[in-house]
Parts: sequence; C-alpha cells; structure tokens
Amino acid sequence: MNNNIQQTGNSIYPTSLISFRVRYAETDAMGVVHHSRYLPWMELGRTELLRQIGYSYRQTEENGFFFPIIEAYCRYHSPARYDDLVNVETTIKDIRPPYIEFCYQITRKSDGLLLVTGRTKQICLNKQGAVRREPLRKMKEILDSQKGKH
Amino acid sequence: MNNNIQQTGNSIYPTSLISFRVRYAETDAMGVVHHSRYLPWMELGRTELLRQIGYSYRQTEENGFFFPIIEAYCRYHSPARYDDLVNVETTIKDIRPPYIEFCYQITRKSDGLLLVTGRTKQICLNKQGAVRREPLRKMKEILDSQKGKH
Amino acid sequence: MNNNIQQTGNSIYPTSLISFRVRYAETDAMGVVHHSRYLPWMELGRTELLRQIGYSYRQTEENGFFFPIIEAYCRYHSPARYDDLVNVETTIKDIRPPYIEFCYQITRKSDGLLLVTGRTKQICLNKQGAVRREPLRKMKEILDSQKGKH
Amino acid sequence: MNNNIQQTGNSIYPTSLISFRVRYAETDAMGVVHHSRYLPWMELGRTELLRQIGYSYRQTEENGFFFPIIEAYCRYHSPARYDDLVNVETTIKDIRPPYIEFCYQITRKSDGLLLVTGRTKQICLNKQGAVRREPLRKMKEILDSQKGKH
Repeated sequence: MNNNIQQTGNSIYPTSLISFRVRYAETDAMGVVHHSRYLPWMELGRTELLRQIGYSYRQTEENGFFFPIIEAYCRYHSPARYDDLVNVETTIKDIRPPYIEFCYQITRKSDGLLLVTGRTKQICLNKQGAVRREPLRKMKEILDSQKGKH
Repeated sequence: MNNNIQQTGNSIYPTSLISFRVRYAETDAMGVVHHSRYLPWMELGRTELLRQIGYSYRQTEENGFFFPIIEAYCRYHSPARYDDLVNVETTIKDIRPPYIEFCYQITRKSDGLLLVTGRTKQICLNKQGAVRREPLRKMKEILDSQKGKH
Repeated sequence: MNNNIQQTGNSIYPTSLISFRVRYAETDAMGVVHHSRYLPWMELGRTELLRQIGYSYRQTEENGFFFPIIEAYCRYHSPARYDDLVNVETTIKDIRPPYIEFCYQITRKSDGLLLVTGRTKQICLNKQGAVRREPLRKMKEILDSQKGKH
Repeated sequence: MNNNIQQTGNSIYPTSLISFRVRYAETDAMGVVHHSRYLPWMELGRTELLRQIGYSYRQTEENGFFFPIIEAYCRYHSPARYDDLVNVETTIKDIRPPYIEFCYQITRKSDGLLLVTGRTKQICLNKQGAVRREPLRKMKEILDSQKGKH
C-alpha cells in the first residue's frame, strides 16, 4: 500500500480536536484497542468538526441528506490501550461535491504518541439514494467565507 | 485516494469463502451495516483462510506470535442490510516476512452484488513486541509447496 | 439478584439452535468475549427462531412493526473465547400481547460447557411508536396451532 | 421479570456522573441506540466511579486482579439517539467479597428523560482464575472510612 496521509495541520480547512478515554469494550484479546474501533472515533471527530463550523450532522440527516462512507483507510502506528486518554484531530482534506474527504490523526494525550492516522471519503445522497451536490457546495462556500478566521 | 484492489481471484495463493447472515446489531441508523463492521468480517475471513491451509490463528497466538494490523483499506460499493446472506472471499495478496497482506471481496449471496472490497496488512510480532520473520517464512514455504493444488 | 432462568427445554414453544465461531473482534483485554457481545448473539437466535416458525423479522419491520427490547438479563457462567464454536438455543418463554419474552442458553459446542443464560422482553410498536397487540396475537395463534408438532 | 432497581441516589456509597455524546456507530436500523451498547456505557461509569474513590481499574488488572461480570440486567425506558448528550450515574449497590454490585441510571442530559436503568454483579478473580476476597475487603474498608464525606 502506498498511501500518503496529508498532515491534518496543513489543511486550508478548520481542524477539530476531541479527547476521551478508551473504553474496556473497545479492547480485544491482544490487550489493545481492536483495529475496527478507530473508525467510530473518526466518526465522532467528524461530528464535532461539522458542529464547530455550524453544521449538525444529525440535523442534516433530519433534512434528508446522508453521507455514507465510500472509502476508508487507516494506518496503525501504535496501539491505544484501555483507559488511555486519546486525542482525535479531524480536518477536511477536500470537498468536491458530491464528495467530501476527511483526515484524522489520533494520538495519546499523555505524551503525544502517534496511534493512528486515517482518511475517509463520503458521498452526499438524499433519502431516495440519489447523488446530491448542493449540500456540499453550500458547505464549501461557508468554509471559503470563513478562511483565515481559523 | 488511489487504491487498486487486486481481484481475489488472481492471487497465486488460496482463497477462502465464508457465508453468514448480517446481524441487526451490525446496522446503524442509516438502515445499513455500519462501515466499521466489515473489518471484523474480514478478520473472520482471514481466520478461515488460515484454517484452510492448516493454520489456527488461535494456536499461533498461544504459541506467542501476534499479527496486529498495520494498515487497512475498505471500499464500500453497496450497503449490506440486516438479515442479508453475505459471502466473504479472502485471499493472501502477498507475504514478505515479517509482513502479510490479505485482500477481501464481500458480496450479497442472493445476487452476487458487490458490497465491499478491502485490504489489510499485518506484521508478525512476538509477545514482547519484537518483529519476527520466521512464522511467515514458514507459512510462505508451506504455501509455495501447496501451489497448483488449489 | 434473584432471577430464575427457565430452562429453554421446558417451553411449550419451539426452540431454535444456531452455531457459529467466536470472532476476534468480540473478545476484550481479559482474553474472553466481552459481556455485551452475547446480546447480539441472542438477537441472532431470535431471528432464526422466528424464521423457523415462519416469520421474517426483517419483513415484520418492513410491514411497519418493531420489537424494541424493554428488559434484558444475562447470567455469565463461563467465558467464551476466540474461535470457540458456540451454540445458541433460543425459545419463546411467554407471549402476552403486546409483550413477548425469549430465553437463551449459550454453550460451547465441543463439550457442552454452559457459557451464558439470558432472557429478553420486547414490546410490539408500530412506526409511530404506538403499542400494537395484533401482531403478537397472530403469532400466538399460529404457535398454538403448531403445538405438538415440535 | 421482577427486578427492583435500587435508586442510585439512595446508596450509602458514592455516585459518579459522566456525560458524553451518543456515537453514530452505537445506533441500529431502528434509528436508536442498540440495546447492547448501554453495557459499555455502564462499564465507563464503573471506571470513573472507581477512579473517583481512588482506584484505577487498569492498575488493578496490572496488579493481577480481574472483575468479570457474572450478571447483568438492563431495563430500557426510552431510547437514546445519535448525538444525544447522555448522563450515566453509577453507584455501588453492595460489596460482599468476592462480589461487588453496581447500579446505573442513564438519562438524557437536555431534559432528564430516563433512558436505561441497570445492575451488574462482578466477582474478583486473580490471573489464575481463583476467587479472591482481599481486594474487595480493602475497597469496602476504604469506602466505609469515607462515609459521610460524600
């Protein structure tokens, strides 16, 4: 695999930061967090990033727009463990309606150890499953108007 | 993202096929399987592929060797739904000790609809976290000796 | 706690049996299956029991009826481990429309070791969240007419 | 089922309160949190309650003591939804070495709506799986000495 993860810090778009403790239920028999469990953390990061720029993903769904994941990539650098405090940094990598890409950097809060980096790509659909460009065009405009304010 | 998924059918290595029903607990509020839930299905596919070529991953761990995931990539083509019968085809893409890569093709059994393709890369470690090449060298030898028998 | 688990074998209603292997993703850092993971297994058991008596839970939801869980009880006797083959026996304990209760017995297939017993109670609602008695009255009639055939 | 949930507020032992947002990955196709997902929230509540009285469950495991769940009971009053802010109140219901029981009350933060109440019972084991009374005797002494300070 040859995947360059864009550093979250380099994005022209805003970055969100959330912190929380690793749950016991997220570990596996190897004694560390199961690799599938980082995807829900990234989802949590996206939700907060969108809230920060004025979007409620919950409201977006209630308005009839959905953003299913069409691609996801994770690189596991070091394992997170039960009760670790972790940071999830999320940024928007690119918006090309109907697509939006996010990238993520997950670190251990105590010492900044890099745990996982990742990317996800989503597509905007309406309730009937038809591709919709407007919601992301609007988001892009809002983000462009906010540039330099971060 | 630019990720070529090698077709599982093209591999020089054996392929395993497992089938099971989608669990309700694997769905999310979008009414389809949550994107993080395909990774445990791929894990299930790996376990069966290894069993098929004579390896028990459980036994391998009991012998002190672990294969943590260092990279994972998923491409979501169509969503799986509750109670769907799904097929998971798993093959070994490459073995370069201490690394092993698997690729996966997940389809709906009723009509063959492509749901998800993916790749994972793992590294062999011992209990102390030291990199170990022997277990995969041995596996590669066994697989090479079985070639043409599949 | 003082909870008598009715033996699944004593029910006047039919029993379903499903078998599958424990997934790695279902284990936790204690090296055994996480206690929350048995509930989805029971759900799988219910789905198969209903299918066996001629009901598709998926179809039931598509028809606009939902059966959210209102109570769940689990007793953990012995832990299941990764790659164990397990049996889940499910039976209907009681149907008092709009309620239905199931009970479960989860055992290790290799030696019959008792792993977990449990009960769940569900209520029938329509899409608007209103309580509905008819679907379970109908199910009870069908089951009563099948009695003695099991 | 006939299960009286002791009110968390009545306990002679301390109570912990944690708050967090519901993750999308915790929902199911019914559009609400899957019933199995409340158990990891209770686990999170226990971890914080123990931390509050001076215990690190992680440290306890590193010292060779484990507290597997032997019984769990949940009563589901109202469903939690994606992005809800929820409160989990945890208290110790009883300590009778080698057993400890916790009870939980999960509410929606915005309006106090009762979502789920529950109880869990755990047993203290050492690494070899032998029952151990000392760790909970010591915890009980510490808690008794703290009484009246809450």
